[in-house]
Amino acid sequence: MGIQKSGKGLLIVLSGPSGAGKGTVCSALRRQAPEVVYSVSATTRQPREGEVDGINYFFKSKEEFKRMIEEGELLEWARYVDNYYGTPRRFVEDRLAEGKNVLLEIEVQGARQVKEHFPEGVFIFLLPPSMKELYARIRGRGTESEEVVEDRMTAARKELDQVHQYDYVVVNDEVAKACQRIRSIMMAEQSRRERIFREQPDWLEGF
Amino acid sequence: MGIQKSGKGLLIVLSGPSGAGKGTVCSALRRQAPEVVYSVSATTRQPREGEVDGINYFFKSKEEFKRMIEEGELLEWARYVDNYYGTPRRFVEDRLAEGKNVLLEIEVQGARQVKEHFPEGVFIFLLPPSMKELYARIRGRGTESEEVVEDRMTAARKELDQVHQYDYVVVNDEVAKACQRIRSIMMAEQSRRERIFREQPDWLEGF
Repeated sequence: MGIQKSGKGLLIVLSGPSGAGKGTVCSALRRQAPEVVYSVSATTRQPREGEVDGINYFFKSKEEFKRMIEEGELLEWARYVDNYYGTPRRFVEDRLAEGKNVLLEIEVQGARQVKEHFPEGVFIFLLPPSMKELYARIRGRGTESEEVVEDRMTAARKELDQVHQYDYVVVNDEVAKACQRIRSIMMAEQSRRERIFREQPDWLEGF
Repeated sequence: MGIQKSGKGLLIVLSGPSGAGKGTVCSALRRQAPEVVYSVSATTRQPREGEVDGINYFFKSKEEFKRMIEEGELLEWARYVDNYYGTPRRFVEDRLAEGKNVLLEIEVQGARQVKEHFPEGVFIFLLPPSMKELYARIRGRGTESEEVVEDRMTAARKELDQVHQYDYVVVNDEVAKACQRIRSIMMAEQSRRERIFREQPDWLEGF
């Protein structure tokens, strides 16, 4: 978008507590903003019907995944139950070098890892419409035990505490509005003076 | 727009060197973004045909204008040839308190004065499509003396040096694109975590 054509792309990290609707917002963004590159995660879980390697996920064996961790090939990773999930660093760095904007939709823990490698990333914290709604989503359909609900509440509170590590807070009151806010953030960040001159200190001379 | 409904509006300062097209961009924004309040300047010059007091300008006598300066009623002011121009503080502060976003389209010198009063404002530096274009505009129709052109060049260079005081740099390559960038900046700034929590430190609790 104009000003940064010759510079690196933006790394946009979309995160927030479970139940904020990250996946839904990200799917809508994929349709509305196809010029953005959406990072593909690596996982050790089995492909589901119709899932394609390199499109939905990079499917890896556990041995391969552990090797990637050891060799620093992942920007962030986590283990859920029996499977590993993570973001391959190479794919992200190559797209950024091409000047593409890359969006990662990841958990709060992963976002913290990414921030260590990419402090210049744009960190967006997505929230559900209200705290009441967040708790309702955590409580689910009322089929979970009190203990499970309590654990999830504790986890959500910890995630919410991370808001102060983020650049932006976007409320997902309506998916279309949340997408519009995120797209505005991407456009605005490309005009940030600090970012332009950090990438190209003599930008004004070449202008 | 959602998140900041209960907070103060944004003060957006659109400035940049003479010849950047501030007036043209601002006129286009007025049509596209009528929800934004456009500040009305005070001036001592005579109203032109069709100009309405309180709409195009607040028309003031020189005595009244000097009194406003002395009593701190202007956010910024300057004298051009025989007339004074300035931005009445009260109008801006009242609209901001109502939660409205207010846009000031002013000269670089004035923007510096505003920044002293409103460091939390959003400062946007508008540039023409290229340095070559800027110099062409300064040179004008070639009817000015070399001395006049040289003075204007010196002034433009001083104005360009001020870019580092600004939050955003927007290139006016096309008026429609410049407007879109400015509107994105306004929307994005309303989602900035720092801004939300500065205005409402306990925002998350009330959420």
